[in-house]
Formats: sequence, C-alpha cells, structure tokens
Amino acid sequence: MTILVLNGPNLSRLGKREPHLYGARALADINRSLAESFPEIQFEFFQSEIEGELIRKLFEAEDEGKVQGVALNPGALAHTSIALRDAIASIRLPVVEVHLTNVFARETFRRHSFVSEVCVGVISGFGEMSYRLGVQALLWRLRSEVGK
Amino acid sequence: MTILVLNGPNLSRLGKREPHLYGARALADINRSLAESFPEIQFEFFQSEIEGELIRKLFEAEDEGKVQGVALNPGALAHTSIALRDAIASIRLPVVEVHLTNVFARETFRRHSFVSEVCVGVISGFGEMSYRLGVQALLWRLRSEVGK
Amino acid sequence: MTILVLNGPNLSRLGKREPHLYGARALADINRSLAESFPEIQFEFFQSEIEGELIRKLFEAEDEGKVQGVALNPGALAHTSIALRDAIASIRLPVVEVHLTNVFARETFRRHSFVSEVCVGVISGFGEMSYRLGVQALLWRLRSEVGK
Amino acid sequence: MTILVLNGPNLSRLGKREPHLYGARALADINRSLAESFPEIQFEFFQSEIEGELIRKLFEAEDEGKVQGVALNPGALAHTSIALRDAIASIRLPVVEVHLTNVFARETFRRHSFVSEVCVGVISGFGEMSYRLGVQALLWRLRSEVGK
Amino acid sequence: MTILVLNGPNLSRLGKREPHLYGARALADINRSLAESFPEIQFEFFQSEIEGELIRKLFEAEDEGKVQGVALNPGALAHTSIALRDAIASIRLPVVEVHLTNVFARETFRRHSFVSEVCVGVISGFGEMSYRLGVQALLWRLRSEVGK
Amino acid sequence: MTILVLNGPNLSRLGKREPHLYGARALADINRSLAESFPEIQFEFFQSEIEGELIRKLFEAEDEGKVQGVALNPGALAHTSIALRDAIASIRLPVVEVHLTNVFARETFRRHSFVSEVCVGVISGFGEMSYRLGVQALLWRLRSEVGK
Amino acid sequence: MTILVLNGPNLSRLGKREPHLYGARALADINRSLAESFPEIQFEFFQSEIEGELIRKLFEAEDEGKVQGVALNPGALAHTSIALRDAIASIRLPVVEVHLTNVFARETFRRHSFVSEVCVGVISGFGEMSYRLGVQALLWRLRSEVGK
Amino acid sequence: MTILVLNGPNLSRLGKREPHLYGARALADINRSLAESFPEIQFEFFQSEIEGELIRKLFEAEDEGKVQGVALNPGALAHTSIALRDAIASIRLPVVEVHLTNVFARETFRRHSFVSEVCVGVISGFGEMSYRLGVQALLWRLRSEVGK
Amino acid sequence: MTILVLNGPNLSRLGKREPHLYGARALADINRSLAESFPEIQFEFFQSEIEGELIRKLFEAEDEGKVQGVALNPGALAHTSIALRDAIASIRLPVVEVHLTNVFARETFRRHSFVSEVCVGVISGFGEMSYRLGVQALLWRLRSEVGK
Amino acid sequence: MTILVLNGPNLSRLGKREPHLYGARALADINRSLAESFPEIQFEFFQSEIEGELIRKLFEAEDEGKVQGVALNPGALAHTSIALRDAIASIRLPVVEVHLTNVFARETFRRHSFVSEVCVGVISGFGEMSYRLGVQALLWRLRSEVGK
Amino acid sequence: MTILVLNGPNLSRLGKREPHLYGARALADINRSLAESFPEIQFEFFQSEIEGELIRKLFEAEDEGKVQGVALNPGALAHTSIALRDAIASIRLPVVEVHLTNVFARETFRRHSFVSEVCVGVISGFGEMSYRLGVQALLWRLRSEVGK
Amino acid sequence: MTILVLNGPNLSRLGKREPHLYGARALADINRSLAESFPEIQFEFFQSEIEGELIRKLFEAEDEGKVQGVALNPGALAHTSIALRDAIASIRLPVVEVHLTNVFARETFRRHSFVSEVCVGVISGFGEMSYRLGVQALLWRLRSEVGK
Repeated sequence: MTILVLNGPNLSRLGKREPHLYGARALADINRSLAESFPEIQFEFFQSEIEGELIRKLFEAEDEGKVQGVALNPGALAHTSIALRDAIASIRLPVVEVHLTNVFARETFRRHSFVSEVCVGVISGFGEMSYRLGVQALLWRLRSEVGK
Repeated sequence: MTILVLNGPNLSRLGKREPHLYGARALADINRSLAESFPEIQFEFFQSEIEGELIRKLFEAEDEGKVQGVALNPGALAHTSIALRDAIASIRLPVVEVHLTNVFARETFRRHSFVSEVCVGVISGFGEMSYRLGVQALLWRLRSEVGK
Repeated sequence: MTILVLNGPNLSRLGKREPHLYGARALADINRSLAESFPEIQFEFFQSEIEGELIRKLFEAEDEGKVQGVALNPGALAHTSIALRDAIASIRLPVVEVHLTNVFARETFRRHSFVSEVCVGVISGFGEMSYRLGVQALLWRLRSEVGK
Repeated sequence: MTILVLNGPNLSRLGKREPHLYGARALADINRSLAESFPEIQFEFFQSEIEGELIRKLFEAEDEGKVQGVALNPGALAHTSIALRDAIASIRLPVVEVHLTNVFARETFRRHSFVSEVCVGVISGFGEMSYRLGVQALLWRLRSEVGK
Repeated sequence: MTILVLNGPNLSRLGKREPHLYGARALADINRSLAESFPEIQFEFFQSEIEGELIRKLFEAEDEGKVQGVALNPGALAHTSIALRDAIASIRLPVVEVHLTNVFARETFRRHSFVSEVCVGVISGFGEMSYRLGVQALLWRLRSEVGK
Repeated sequence: MTILVLNGPNLSRLGKREPHLYGARALADINRSLAESFPEIQFEFFQSEIEGELIRKLFEAEDEGKVQGVALNPGALAHTSIALRDAIASIRLPVVEVHLTNVFARETFRRHSFVSEVCVGVISGFGEMSYRLGVQALLWRLRSEVGK
Repeated sequence: MTILVLNGPNLSRLGKREPHLYGARALADINRSLAESFPEIQFEFFQSEIEGELIRKLFEAEDEGKVQGVALNPGALAHTSIALRDAIASIRLPVVEVHLTNVFARETFRRHSFVSEVCVGVISGFGEMSYRLGVQALLWRLRSEVGK
Repeated sequence: MTILVLNGPNLSRLGKREPHLYGARALADINRSLAESFPEIQFEFFQSEIEGELIRKLFEAEDEGKVQGVALNPGALAHTSIALRDAIASIRLPVVEVHLTNVFARETFRRHSFVSEVCVGVISGFGEMSYRLGVQALLWRLRSEVGK
Repeated sequence: MTILVLNGPNLSRLGKREPHLYGARALADINRSLAESFPEIQFEFFQSEIEGELIRKLFEAEDEGKVQGVALNPGALAHTSIALRDAIASIRLPVVEVHLTNVFARETFRRHSFVSEVCVGVISGFGEMSYRLGVQALLWRLRSEVGK
Repeated sequence: MTILVLNGPNLSRLGKREPHLYGARALADINRSLAESFPEIQFEFFQSEIEGELIRKLFEAEDEGKVQGVALNPGALAHTSIALRDAIASIRLPVVEVHLTNVFARETFRRHSFVSEVCVGVISGFGEMSYRLGVQALLWRLRSEVGK
Repeated sequence: MTILVLNGPNLSRLGKREPHLYGARALADINRSLAESFPEIQFEFFQSEIEGELIRKLFEAEDEGKVQGVALNPGALAHTSIALRDAIASIRLPVVEVHLTNVFARETFRRHSFVSEVCVGVISGFGEMSYRLGVQALLWRLRSEVGK
Repeated sequence: MTILVLNGPNLSRLGKREPHLYGARALADINRSLAESFPEIQFEFFQSEIEGELIRKLFEAEDEGKVQGVALNPGALAHTSIALRDAIASIRLPVVEVHLTNVFARETFRRHSFVSEVCVGVISGFGEMSYRLGVQALLWRLRSEVGK
C-alpha cells in the first residue's frame, strides 16, 4: 500500500518558521518519523509552494495507480484555492486534510477551508502527530471500503 | 490513566439516527470497542442531551482529579454553545473535539464551532474511528506535556 | 391514535406572560380544550424549559411506539437550537411546528427557525387555534401516508 | 360569509408543475374540494400571474364589501413584493398566508416573506390541506372578532 | 408645458389607506389640487398597480413628445424594481421622485430606492405637498436646461 | 422546429435606449435578422414589460406544444423575479438566458440572476449576436437530447 | 416668521468646491437669493465645519424662541453623526433636510443619513433650488400645524 | 425586601476559572460579602449551569411573591439564549444584568446580549463589585417605582 | 480625591430633551446631587457638544495630575468616535462609561460603543443613578489599585 | 486569423473528472473538434494548472502579435484570481470567458467571477459547445471592430 | 516652497501616548526634525483634536496660496470622517496621508480610511519616518506636475 | 547592504499595461533608476507571475543571508494570497509593501491586503517613486534595529 503525503506552501519552512506555532522539526524529519511509524506502508512525499504543482501531483497519483490515499496539508491554500478543491473532487483517491496547528483557534480567515468539503475528514491541531493520525484515518477508510 | 469520553445531544440516538450519516452502531457498542482498543486506559463514558449536565461533568472531572483528558463530541452544541466553550476554557484538562461526520461538508451552520477555539484540536469525519484518533491525540498530548 | 403535544421554554407561563401577545389562558386550559376538540385522539402533553428534556421526550415517543405524530411549539428554541433540530431529524415521527404568535411579524431574530427545515410544516399566528390546526395537519399527514 | 381565495404567479400550473413538490391536482380541483369542505361558506376564487392584478383584487374585495377574509397563496411574490405587502396593510380584511410546500425547508431566498408581517398568520407545508387550514384560521379569527 | 404625474401601486388607495400615514384625501383630490396650484401647466395623470404599465406610460410620454417632465411616486416599486429604474434611465425626460411619507424614517427595506439613482432628485415626507414641490423642482430643472 | 424568443421589460426600447450600451437597432430589426440567420427554424417573438405576461407566454408555449425551446432575455427581471424563475422551473422546455450587455461588468445588483439557476446556460455581452448564439445553444441542446 | 438655514461642513466652499457637482455660486449668494425669494420671512443663516457648533445652534434656536423651523444641509455629517441626529430629536422645531446634489446617485456611503429619520422630510438633488423647496416645505408644515 | 441573585453557567467555577479574568474568590464568598454589604436586605442565591433551571427560578420568584428584584449574571447565555430573554420579558420583576468582566472589551461574540434588551440596565466590568452596584441599582429602581 | 465627570453632546439638553427617555432634571441638578452624595470627593464637571473638546479635557485632566478617575457619558459619540476611544486609551486615568438610558434596548446603531473597549466597565440604564454607580465603581477601582 | 484557446486548472482532467458534470470527452478531443468546426481559423491551444503560466501565455500572445482573440476557460481561477483579471485588463486582445457547466446553477462561491468584468462577455453551461459559441462570439467581435 | 503638516486628534499626545506603539518623541520634536531634514522647504505645522478645525486649516491653506502640498496624519478621523474627505476633495492642493503605525496590522476598524480615496497616496507604519517619506512623496508629485 | 526588490504578477507588463494607471516605463527601467538612486546599496531584482516562485525567492533570500530587507510589490496577490502572507511571516527579514497606484482609491476588492498585516508598513500611490520611498523606509528600519 502506498500513501502520498502532500504538503503545500510554506511547509518547506518547518523548523525555521515560527517554531512556537509549528514546532522545531524540519519537514524531512517529520516525513522520516512518519515512515518509521508505519513500516508496512510505502510513502511518497511531495511538497511545493505552487498550487498548480500540487494539483498535478494529485493527477499523477491517480493516473499512475500506485497510490491508494492522500494525506494533504494544504497550508494556506486551504482557505483560498477552489482549484485545489476541484482537483480533489475530480479524483477517486480518498484525501484526508491535516493541519499542524489548530486552524480554528487562529485568525478568522483560517476558519474556512474550501478543501474540507471534498475530503474524507479533517485533523487539525496536533503538530506532526496530525500526519500520523491522518495516515491511520486513511487506513481505516481504505479498509472499510475493501470490506464493502 | 483515565480518559473521559463525553457525548452531547442526540448521540444517544446512534444506530437509530440517520444511519447513512452516522453509522449503524449504538453508542454503547462504540464505547465498548473504544475501550477494547486501548486496554491500558481507564475510560469514563458520559452522554447527555443537556448542555448544563455536560458542563457539570467537565467540572467534576477536573475536581475529582482522576481524569487526565477529554474526548468530546459536542454534537450540535458545538455550533451554538458559548457556555460549553467557556467551561472548557475554565478547566486545565486537555480536550479534543471529535465528530463522526465531516461537519465541514454539511450545512453552512455546521461550519463554525465555538468549542474548537479552546480545544487542543479537532478530528472530524471518520465515523467511530474519530473517537479512536481522538484518544490517540490525547495520549500524544499528555505524553508531550509530561516530557516537558 | 396518540399525538404528543410538546411545548418548549416559557410556555408554562401562558396566561401570565404578556397576555396581549399570548392570550389569557393557561397551558392546561389550552390542552384541555384541545383534547375536547378531538375526542377520538389520545393526547400526551409535555412541557419543559430545558432543551435536553424536550429532546429526550421526542426519543421516548419514538421508542415507546405509541405516539404517531408530534405538535411542537418550540418557543424561543426554534431560533437557537440546532440540537432540537437534529433530534427531530433523527426520528421518523412527523412533527408539525406551531406558534401562538405570528413570529414573522416580530423581532428579526424570530424570523429564522432551525426547526422548520425538518418539520412537515409550520403554523404560526393563530393563538391556541394554532394547536388545533397543527393537530389537523398531522391527521392529514398521517392519513395520506397510510393511503400510500 | 364569503372568503376570497387568492393565488399568485405559477399556481395556475398546479398539477403540471413539479408534482413531487406541489402535488398532482390542478388548482380548479383544489378549489372545488375546498368549497365542498366548507358548504356553509361562499368562495370567490382568483388567480393571476400579475402582481398588480392581485393587488386590485384585494382592493375590490374590500370595497365591494361582500368578502370577510382572504386566504392568500402569494407564490414567489411573498419573497419579493413590497407592493403586495402594502396592499394587504392598506385594507381591513384579515388575510392568512398559505403555502403548499414548506417554504422554510427550501432555498434560502424563500425564507423571508414580506407578506407575513402584515398577515394574521402563516400556514406552510401541507399541500392543498394548507388552504383548508387557512380557511379554518380565518373563521376562527372572524368569530373571535365578532366575540369582542 | 405638460407634466406627467405618475403614481405606482397602492396610491389608488389614498384616503382609504392608513390615513395616519398617508392622509385623508383621495388621489383624485390631490391631483385636482395640484392642477389648481399650477394653472399654467397641463397635467397628465396616470396610476397603476402594475409595474409594466408604468413603464409603458413612461415610454409613451417620451415617444408622443408632449410631456416635458415626470413627477413619479413609485410607491413600493422604488425598493424592488430594477425594471422601472432601467425604464427611467432609457428615456430623456427628467423624472423627480416623490414620496408622501418620509421613507427614511420607516422600515429598513424602504431605505433604498433603485429609482433614485436615475432621477433628478428626491422629495420625501411632505404629504401631498411633495407633489407640488416635485412639480416646482421639475420647472426649475426644465428652465435651467433651457437657459443653457 | 419552433423557438420562442422572449424579451422582458425595456427591450422594446432598443435602438432608442442608451445606444452606447444596447446598440442602435430596434428589437424588430434584431428579430428579423435572427429569423434570416436561421431560415430552417420557425420563430415566435414576444416582448412585454409585464412579468406576469412573460410567465403566461411560457405556459402557453409549453401547453400548445409547438415550441421546442426558448431564448429568454429577461432584462432587469433577471435580478428580481423569483416568479419568473419558478415559471421556468415549472415547464419542461429548455430555456437559454441571453443578455445584450455583459451584465457582469456593470452595477453590482446586475451580478445575480435568479433565472440563471433554472436555465440551460447563460450568454451575456455580445449585443444582438447574443440571441444568435442563444439559438445555436438551444439547437445543440435539443439535438443532444434527441440523441439520447 | 423666522427660519434658520443651517449648513454643515464644506458648504463654506460652495462656488470653489467641485463646481460641476455643487454649482458655481457661493453660499452667501445662495443665502441672499433665498431671502429675496421669501421677502415675508426672516432668515437666520449659520454655517460651521464643526458638528458641535451646529448642535449648539439648534439648541439656541429652540431656546431663544424666535425661530419656527430649520432648513438643514448637514453635508457629510448626515452620514456619520448620531450626535446631530440626537440634537434634532431633542428639540421641538421642525427640521427639513436638504442636499444640493442627489446623494442617492453618488457613493454608497452617502446613501444612508442618520439625520433623515428625525426630520420632517428630505429634499435632495436640485442645487440651490433645494433650499427654496425646503423653506416651502417648512411653511407648509408650520401652517398645517397651526391649522390643527 | 428580598433580592434574588441569579448566576448562570460556569459561575460555579469562580475562584478556579481563569482568575486573571474573573478574580480569585469563589461564588460563595462573593455571595457572603454581598449579603454583608446590605444587611437590611434578604438575599436568595441561585446558580445553575442549565438554562431551563434559571428560567424556572425566575418563574418561581415571580409566583411565590417574596422576591422584589433580580440581579442576574447570565454568563455566556447572555449571548445565545432567547429563551432566557423571553422569560425575563414574561415576568414583572425588575432584572438588572451584571457581568464580572467588561464583556465589551472581549471577543466579538460577547458584544451582543439578548438579555440586555429586556433588563432595566447593564453593569459590566467591575468584578464582584458589579453585583453590589447591581443591587444598588435595583434598590433605586424599586424606590422610584414606589414613589410613583 | 478628585473625579472628572465628563458629558458629551446633547447632555446639556437634559430636562428639556425627550423627558420620557432621559428624565426631567437638568444636568446641573444631576451634578449637584452627585456632589452631595459623595461629600468626601472633589468633582470637576465638564460638558461639551464638541468631540475635540472632550478629548482635550481628558488630556488636561491627565496632565494636571489632580484628577484620579473619570466618569464619562459620551452620548452618541460612543457609537461613532474612534478619536475619543484613542484618547482614553492614551491616558492612564481609569474611565467608567455611563449612560442614562439602557442603550442596549434602543436602536441597533446604539448597540456598539467604540469607547467601551478601553474603559474599565460600563453602566447603562439607571437614569442619573448611573452616574452615582459610576463614581462608586471608580472608587472601588482606585482602592483596589492602591491595595496592590 | 489565429485564436488562442486557453484552459485553466483541472481542465486537463476532462473525460476523467466528474463526467456527469463535465462530459466524457478529453480536452484534446474537444480541441480537435473545435479546430474542425472552424477550418478557416488557426488555433493555438494551451492548458495549465498554474495561474502564472496562464498569465504568461496571455502576454506572449499579445506580444508575438499572431493571435487576434482569446477563448478562456479559467476554471476555478475565475472565482479567486485577481491577478488573471489584471492580466486580461492589461492586454488589448479581446477575451471571451467560457464555462462548460452553468456555473450560476452550482455552489454560491461559483457565482462571482473576477474575470468576467474585463472580458467581452460570458458563455456558460453548454458543455464543449461553449467553446464553439465562444469562438463565434470572438469572430463577431473582431469583425465588428474591423467594421469601425 | 511651503508644505503644511497637518495632524489630527490625539497626535498632541505623542511621546506620552502608548510609546510602544507611537514612539517616545513629542510632536514638537518630530516637527523640528522634519524641518531640519528639509532645510530648503518652509513648513507650517498645525494640530487639532477638532475635525472642523482641520477642515478650516485646509481651506485657509488653499485660499492663502502659500502652501503647495499637505502631509496629513488624520489619526482616527481617517476611519470616520467623510467631512474631512470631502474637504480634501474640494481643494486642489495635493494631500499625502501618513500614519505612524501600520494601521493595516491593527484592529479591523482601522483598515478602512475614507481619506485615502482622495489623497495622492498613503504611507503607513514607519514612525516619524512616515512624515519624512510623505514630504518626499509630495516633492515628487509637485515636481512631476511642474514637469507637465 | 543588499535589498531584494520583489515584484508579483503583471508587473512585467509595466510600460505596456494601462499606462494611464501604471506609467510608461518598463520594469527594467524602473529597476535601473532605483539602483542609480542608491549607489551604496546592492540590489537583487526578481519578478514572477507565479505566487510560489515569489515565496521561494523570499526563502532563498533569508537562507542565503546576503539580503537585509525586501521591497515587495505583490500586485494583485496582495488581495488574495494567504500563502504569501505566511511566507513573509515565516522569515525574519523586514518587508515593506509598495504599490504604484493608490490601491485605496480603486475597486473595493483592492482595499484589503493580506500582506500588509505582516509587513513593516505600506507605501501606495506614488508610481515608481513608491519603490524609492520603500527602500528608504527599509534603510530607516534596518538602522533603527542596529541602533537597538
């Protein structure tokens, strides 16, 4: 089983960016820990600052057929990108939205996510643990679909 | 370690209530499964249709000192109860908000939760798996606090 | 045939409460007249100031199986209670919303009812006659369902 | 006693228009049934697609002095016509607003009625039974005025 | 010089309609007084409850070439009719908007007039004197145009 | 094949009305050109300043059975008439909404059309060419339905 | 009879200020013409850029007892000053609001006047003729009060 | 003379709850001090987390006839409970609204109180001194009513 | 100890201004009674219709060093003056906001006060008693600061 | 004559993406059909998921001088991209906005297009026929400009 | 060349007012430094807490003919004064708006300035350096006008 | 000292794009002039139409350590890009926002900038002079930081 972990703008700054908010570990470290936590799963990691590259990655993942699910941290694009939303809606892969911080306890403009409406669900506020919970949620979802 | 699983209005209807949305299992079954998934943890389960009883339970949990964290499914009170929000803000116990359905993909009035702002984080959309992820998030939080 | 007449907060004040708005008769009198107007129907009457008790009553009515329909005057909860709305949506009993006053001719905050969206219909503005019309509407609904 | 049953735009389409919403019976059939249900009452029936013709009919009814009350289904004009509202406010005849469907459970723009504020009350959601309930409400109103 | 005095819905009710708001005199009386106040002017009077008939009258007035200006009391259409607004914008005749009551001191929905934006100006709140002031304003406007 | 070309308020003014916005040709000229462009099609042309007459025409077209589709320029009624919207929704004929000007580049109140939601599609901004494109769109739609 | 003509901020600029909007004549000229038009009336003229000085003038006018009515051009304070509104409401003198330009055809923020709600009426859009109409409206009002 | 001091949700937490906001003293201590400050007055103290119990207490106070006035700290219900508002409106006892903190200097959602509109007045921001001022305000009100 | 009692626009009208709202006593009388109620305190009284003069008085009070606190009735400036708000924020003197009427039970535009956010607290609705309560609140505040 | 057909994010998914909404044909097929329908025209086709690449393409088209007009399907960028809007405004080429689906009959956030305001016009709702109509509209526009 | 430096309410408090926001230097010091930085320019300095006095100063500056440009720090009036806006629009002198703090990073009500729309441009956030940049911007503007 | 001058979408069109708004000089010319005005400073110039490339450039500037400050003209991204805002917040380099035009005097959607909140300050409306003022503001900021 392969899971795509997709990170949007500014997540390349983890470790450097406002560590009181986002923690002190770099994205590479978080990815490594995540892979170690789920040794039975293949991971594909991708990050970009560019909305269109994230969209393309979703299409590739769908078309190549290796990936079974996506853990997506859209960063600030959650709040502004209808294009990303439409991309998720246009593929059949299940996508779980994850956020490091509790976006609902921050500025008003972070309250609404265009992306949430087309994801399986949302996990927000648990630092890098959010990714681990996101992967578990995906596994649960994939298994329950198989069970049908 | 003891965790309080607190459920708000209408969650007593699980299994009977719109099963296409909320699943076919009763709350008691979900609670039992949850306890079996975490054999090392003590659980206290409480459900009420009454906002004030949920608030009292939070205070009791804090005052008696046995409970270390709360997994809260506030149901519809998430969207209307500032009193519940203030109760969570007034205790020191960490609270994780969980929802069975993806509330962000439903009616507009379910988009805003007064409660989220004072919780550690939010998990929404994974059926009864949401509770399991919520408990894991709490464990992570409690351990990272201990580690400080 | 049994019909539950459910009254929300402040309706216990009828007769005492702003009689120019709500009329001079107590709730007990209204209930008695209602029963006399429909001698062929069994009535169950319940009033509470507490949102959660109204929700519980709806669940009891559904679970015990005696009641076939509900005439609900939610009082001010119409405008604020998503929990009550969800409770109605979670049962199969038809519910008709009734109001003594014409809520659409009063303050702006009385214009929207969360409850209306999940009821069969709404009757508003005819004093205690609203209950009688509500019961007739329920009878019509129940008969037309039987006729299917 | 004479009651005017006034129907606004599109109600001439009943039976043909979205029957899953509005039922399968034509307006003429509904009118006939209504008259049969209240053999002691004279009915005057009027329908128009034109706002101004409905207003004129209200004025005629008031000025000719035969009609004692009005059951009005304003159709979509409820949501847009301040002129109709002002016409109702300018006559002394009591007017009851009726709707076939539960307008509060449909699109947002059907939630507000300019007309409701100047009517005795509102009945919404019971198919052609709404007219029958509306006539009963008028009778109650007219009798209680006589009783004063 | 000929001036068209155009009255919209419900103004046929003057004298009968809420006399504490609109005064005790009928429209015909007001028209007669107006004509007597300006003996040097020809008047054409037109009233309709129907938006489209008012629009047609404006077009006729423009096309026949006798009328030099319009005093318009749009009634409630001021607040709802973009069609009437567009009709005024499509003719070259100057139009002055008049209201019997002070519409700015009444319900919120009477605060905005689509029509005002395309009229020369607005006179509101002086009972039938509003028409007289409106005619004077038109005369001033027509003279100052001649003077150019 | 017969197509109804239906024009709303103020379109009778074409040629006279703000020619910098709407062009210098009268509606009759536009209609004639349109007919000449599609010699294989029967056209029925109707214009009215009155909302209710447009609604009636739609019903007639549906009931008489000759017309297969409608090209509708609702004029300003697009922005204010829920009655017209409901009329379109209540018939089975496909309706294409056309506008001479680009309504999206004008005043804010022209941005929203109640009618668009129940039409096949919208064509806006191409002067009288909008009608020709509208007819082509209808032909395409009718053919693709036949092809099913 | 004495009438106070009260002018708010920026009206001292008339003649210099955007003449395409406000005309080429200075306030003193306008005042002189106004006095000449009504030789039977005493006028008191006052202009200030300061909200509080306008309020004081209103109080003086009321307290000294010479003035019978006020023609007020509040300028931009119409849109922002609740204090001026309260001052007008606190005196018994009738006040007519006048504007040189048609404020309803300008920026959105000029659409609402706090002052209109407590004035007898509003005259807007007729250049210095607005003052003359305002004085006539006051005379009408004062006479009709006397007539009571 | 007896005064009811009524406290809403979360006020049982005083002393424990965010002491930087609400002070370090428990509700019992505040009540005791209050009673000592007004030795000539009888006090009845009641607190509940449940909206409906507060409403019932208000009705009891009115019906038993011992209480002459109410000092109400509604807590967060001020911002959400129309039912509490209606209960206050339905009794004749004067009610003064008090808040420990200055609710107007906190989150936006604390700016509006449904309750204020039906209370004699509001006192907000003076810690437990708010109760003392509230009682004085009640005494003043009761005396001035007696003086009538 | 010296306290500045600062009154904004229109409060010079007390006794004359809408006595059913504001009472029958003049400001001078209220001031005198206030001074008699607190014989141990020095009072400085200042009223102005001009926002800028109120701001200057606050600065003088701070700079001269005699005044220890301010009871401010901003009148209508509460709802419109950010400048007054900033002035209060820029001084160290504690300011208590008082209103004669219950501003929360009046027009919507009186619901929001820019000033409240930077005051110690708010007292609203108790006629001239509001000033007395305001002074007491200031004394409490000044003493509790001394006690620190 | 050369026309640029420019497609924004997600349009590369046509045929795969929600075929009930967008049809079963791939973008390459649509492009090929379009070229075949207009054999006399040169087409340049460009699609990108990246907003900035679409902007660059518009600049290239303008600067190279071969292209005479643009048919643009901005996809979801219509609703969010002011940058794309500004790019269109900054070139002299006429641009026609086309959409496959009727965006006005979908989610509320698809109702507003920043792009429409600077395009010649809008065509929405006719599947791949929308492109054909868009090209015709461009031809009409280009010819009428030549005709000037 | 003479430049008027105009400061609005509360800027007399600089040095004393919240120094963490506004810096530790008094307005006189800032003015002196500014004059020293531009020895070739004449400066006129004016500050007032009163809106009307600022407006008068602008008129004087225009009428006396010595001043060539204005650097205006309107303080809080930026957000509330349409009168100040209109005064700027009514003179020909170029005005540059300056703010000490970055008003866009503070409370929401500081986001909108009525004044900006009629100024040459805005400089915000650089402490007393904002004035120096403002003067430079004026010099640039005046030179480029001369160059025309 | 090195300063990065960063330009967003459409600024590559300067000289070609609406020269009445943006001036007649190309970006390269503006950059050259800017460098000549500050011979003691090193400049790095970067422009892109792609949001993500601007973000990357900011990260590179921070990571390479040569750049001390950024003058950013975000173009239309100011109004839509939370990702750009987050990127600025995540670096320690001071950023000054500059605009060629006075964005506050244009369309409403240009009034709000997500970017302003995390910049040192804003300079808007002075053509290419805005860049020069921006660099000066940066120098001032960098020197005052050194002085700490």
